[in-house]
Amino acid sequence: MVNKEAIISWFQGLQDKICQGLEELDGGSFAEDVWERVEGGGGRSRVIEGKHIEKGGVMFSAVAGLMPEVIAKGLGLAPNKFIATGVSIVLHPRNPYVPIVHMNVRYFETDRGEWWFGGGIDATPHYIDRSQAKGFHSKLKLACDVLDEEAYPKYKQWADDYFYNTHRQETRGIGGIFFDRLNSSSGHKKEDCWDFVRAVGEAFLPAYEDLFRVGYIRDYGEAERRWQLIRRGRYVEFNLIYDRGTKFGLQTNGRIESILVSMPPDAKWVYNDQPKSGSPERETLDQLKKGIDWLAG
Amino acid sequence: MVNKEAIISWFQGLQDKICQGLEELDGGSFAEDVWERVEGGGGRSRVIEGKHIEKGGVMFSAVAGLMPEVIAKGLGLAPNKFIATGVSIVLHPRNPYVPIVHMNVRYFETDRGEWWFGGGIDATPHYIDRSQAKGFHSKLKLACDVLDEEAYPKYKQWADDYFYNTHRQETRGIGGIFFDRLNSSSGHKKEDCWDFVRAVGEAFLPAYEDLFRVGYIRDYGEAERRWQLIRRGRYVEFNLIYDRGTKFGLQTNGRIESILVSMPPDAKWVYNDQPKSGSPERETLDQLKKGIDWLAG
Repeated sequence: MVNKEAIISWFQGLQDKICQGLEELDGGSFAEDVWERVEGGGGRSRVIEGKHIEKGGVMFSAVAGLMPEVIAKGLGLAPNKFIATGVSIVLHPRNPYVPIVHMNVRYFETDRGEWWFGGGIDATPHYIDRSQAKGFHSKLKLACDVLDEEAYPKYKQWADDYFYNTHRQETRGIGGIFFDRLNSSSGHKKEDCWDFVRAVGEAFLPAYEDLFRVGYIRDYGEAERRWQLIRRGRYVEFNLIYDRGTKFGLQTNGRIESILVSMPPDAKWVYNDQPKSGSPERETLDQLKKGIDWLAG
Repeated sequence: MVNKEAIISWFQGLQDKICQGLEELDGGSFAEDVWERVEGGGGRSRVIEGKHIEKGGVMFSAVAGLMPEVIAKGLGLAPNKFIATGVSIVLHPRNPYVPIVHMNVRYFETDRGEWWFGGGIDATPHYIDRSQAKGFHSKLKLACDVLDEEAYPKYKQWADDYFYNTHRQETRGIGGIFFDRLNSSSGHKKEDCWDFVRAVGEAFLPAYEDLFRVGYIRDYGEAERRWQLIRRGRYVEFNLIYDRGTKFGLQTNGRIESILVSMPPDAKWVYNDQPKSGSPERETLDQLKKGIDWLAG
């Protein structure tokens, strides 16, 4: 049966599996902080400063308690007891040819019987490589097909719209998939939603491995590093200005260090930086648009 | 007479005077971008990458047009034509012993006759020095006394409350003064408000010079630089999560590069960084609190 205990337990197992996989890939190891939240629940924050992953967080949490009024209002719910559990990942690589990759799967339930799943995976390459982007999106489509055929195009567009720096009219990266408030109103049974969410969770590691192995062996210099730091600055802008997960965490008195582990280790802001026409940096910028069919290659 | 033309013209002159003073202090020079806003108005953005000021912006703007609905709603006004003009400064020094200093003076007016002034000066030392903080606040008090005796305590508290990273329960720095929507409802004539705003504008350069001259000659190493980058990360958090000026700019389709020139040239996020008890970093952290009487020294 799909109940909150089973979901929490599966999420914990997913965290374990992903951390193990990433340690094998990187050669470094995660440090763990176990924490409790005064209002209820807690989590296991695992952070790596690795050989190739400059800073990465693989966070599990299951928080519970009375919903703050501001949150209830935002969700269109009466204030109530809730549990929110999930696994959240952000990996900032050293090598600029490896994308920043983010994954999140989450489950939310109130004492009044409301429930939903949410999640997604998306990539933020510092340099866009169309064949890498195609492989990445193909894997996400396979996970989406577990739900139905409409899921990929729908959740791909949702990611385009969500991971968007409106003030710069730039997508954060090549997107991926994003979904929220998935429940039986979608026409799917809870079991089917859960199968899909698990498929998303399981898609992360192989999708990351592919991007990693292609990128981490490439040489780079000062110019690529500088560009990486500028792109990380945009990542900061998105997460602090728009990201709902970050806001939810800050508003529910979440553990600050766990929420902001998504911040890059270093970032740079250069006034009015304008990459030259024809440069790889300009080519990347020109592809930070909504609506690109990455599967077309 | 205090009309918008006179205010705009004085603000432009202030920008000139401050840039000249900062060039003398630093030895480097400002580059200027003149820009226009599609919806009306424009500005002069001046940016320095100097010998001692790693990145600094002294921005003048006077934008006009129809107020976006979201802004009107936020201000409690009917949508209307408006002009907003001001000078805004953020200076990020190379030497961690020089504080980040911010200044803003602004004027807002609608076609329906609503008007108000706003502004403030505040400092964000990477390392707090009580005697520097006392000198800084003393100068701000003198500017406030131009309005009346209640202004300093009132606007000092406003700055404490405003420049606050709620999610970290930390003030941004040692505060300063902050005020908004100052108009005749304060019991002061427009001329008196304007005298005060000019006093604030004129207080900036001498206040900055004092902080600069004490700090920039001090030696520092890797540890102090690392701490500076971490504190700059907090500065980014405040500006992107809370700062109303930044939000207003982004919502009114302002010039992104001018708005985000407040971002530091480089910043760092270290997971769960905990300065040691008794260290200068810890002593600084312990003073990032509201309600400290800096004048007491």
